Amino acid sequence: MSLLVVGSVAFDTIETPFGKVENVLGGSATFISVAASYFVTPIRLVGVVGGDFADEHIKFLIDRDVDLEGLQVIKEGKTFRWGGRYHYDLNVRDTLFTDLNVFEHFKPIIPDSYRKTTYVCLGNIDPILQLCVLEQIEKPRMVIGDTMNFWIKGRRDELIKTLKLLDVLILNDAEVRELTNEPNLICAGKLVLNMGPKVVIIKKGEHGAVLLTPSTIFFAPPYPLENIYDPTGAGDTFAGGFIGWIAKTDDLSDENLKRAVIYGSTLASFCVERFSLDRFKDLTNFEILDRFREFKDLSKFDEVVSE
Amino acid sequence: MSLLVVGSVAFDTIETPFGKVENVLGGSATFISVAASYFVTPIRLVGVVGGDFADEHIKFLIDRDVDLEGLQVIKEGKTFRWGGRYHYDLNVRDTLFTDLNVFEHFKPIIPDSYRKTTYVCLGNIDPILQLCVLEQIEKPRMVIGDTMNFWIKGRRDELIKTLKLLDVLILNDAEVRELTNEPNLICAGKLVLNMGPKVVIIKKGEHGAVLLTPSTIFFAPPYPLENIYDPTGAGDTFAGGFIGWIAKTDDLSDENLKRAVIYGSTLASFCVERFSLDRFKDLTNFEILDRFREFKDLSKFDEVVSE
Repeated sequence: MSLLVVGSVAFDTIETPFGKVENVLGGSATFISVAASYFVTPIRLVGVVGGDFADEHIKFLIDRDVDLEGLQVIKEGKTFRWGGRYHYDLNVRDTLFTDLNVFEHFKPIIPDSYRKTTYVCLGNIDPILQLCVLEQIEKPRMVIGDTMNFWIKGRRDELIKTLKLLDVLILNDAEVRELTNEPNLICAGKLVLNMGPKVVIIKKGEHGAVLLTPSTIFFAPPYPLENIYDPTGAGDTFAGGFIGWIAKTDDLSDENLKRAVIYGSTLASFCVERFSLDRFKDLTNFEILDRFREFKDLSKFDEVVSE
Repeated sequence: MSLLVVGSVAFDTIETPFGKVENVLGGSATFISVAASYFVTPIRLVGVVGGDFADEHIKFLIDRDVDLEGLQVIKEGKTFRWGGRYHYDLNVRDTLFTDLNVFEHFKPIIPDSYRKTTYVCLGNIDPILQLCVLEQIEKPRMVIGDTMNFWIKGRRDELIKTLKLLDVLILNDAEVRELTNEPNLICAGKLVLNMGPKVVIIKKGEHGAVLLTPSTIFFAPPYPLENIYDPTGAGDTFAGGFIGWIAKTDDLSDENLKRAVIYGSTLASFCVERFSLDRFKDLTNFEILDRFREFKDLSKFDEVVSE
């Protein structure tokens, strides 16, 4: 099945307790596309970069079978740059700078050849742009969208409108609480199911993820990593692994959504092992399958009940 | 197998967004004993109350087959009282008052008939008192202990000494981070495994619990409750369900420890459905088994991998 990804392509400058990197490849569309490329190819990426976007990044994306017909290159502009610093407790981070550059006036233009796409993943961008993407394409089988507190606060009405068109909403625990004004995560998730999406996935960082559909609740454990080098992009990678698996299998049953959540968790667990997208330079399908199976043991227990 | 429980017996005054109760039965030893009584009886409870401890509470404990030979009754004193208020987000609570009363000078005295007990559960009390209990008894098969930030900060040296004698330490995520000065929960848990306990269980409230042994890591999902009336005692109830199952089965294998964690989670999930220990007035073994099985589905996914 075909998969369209729309979002940011960026250069990140990141400090963690383990080191610092400058102007490394990042952006929601990049992480989503690369993660999904392990399951389905080519990936149709729509985004924007400046004239400073290096050939090595283009080559990396093409090597991962990411189709760049939809990547706008504004030669006279600069690529979106983001800088962040993670604390010793990696759950806490400060944004050091956000230079939108060419991303500031980004208008997603969907190439004709992409208008008929089976699966669509809308990265964390302005809900107005998410709507603008959906207006340009034929109704896909599934639209999955990400969002963040910035849009929940600043673009609430537009976000509510976009939600009605999403099949799957992925967001983190703080975001779902803010969106619904409900502290209980399960209640909050169910409220989202009344706002449009048929599926909600709540990412809980070190505590794993929860999937909610009208007929199921599924808790995915976290992968017990002891060394997390760089959490940047983990959420986007999760979304990419999730939608990649769905697009590969074309099966929207609750049981397959659970598997997709575990594949998303698996890809995300690899992502944070190195800076930027570095882990995906040598990650193999065999390693992915191996870790997917490890996930099973993390929460498995026998039903054996004493007499 | 026999089970000895040592801890507080108290009257709680609790405010939650759902209501307020005054001077209801509480205390770590109470919750632990009642939860464990679903698996193994009689429970040997060691604690202290004042002359104001009502007959109805004595009757409730006796009905649950809790042996009260070790319950000191100081007629001229008053029972320990605690008051707390939970916020709309039930993860946050304020302590309104703590009147130690007879608990202030509590010295656990282990009756002769209890000195040989197979399983021992030390509720969240001063580590000096936990040590004092262990000095009075023959070496049990397993000692499980709880602690809290108050002792981690104020009785660190004594706690470290007690830890060397524990087989299982149960504590929450904030506490294990404080004890080990390590923000990564898995790393923190492994550090505790080097401090004495062979098993660590980290309670994560709404995010479930993690079990760590030298050979396994197991994530128990939370039960997806939408209405939590009163979180008081959930942690103690977890410990009681855990040790109750272990004492019943007398099986210390990793696989059985996992089951015990799920039984602990199951009992805790019932505890919070009503105020105080009210839910245990009519909770049946059938309901417990039913929910135990529900837990399995919460994190189960098929290994089926697409070709």
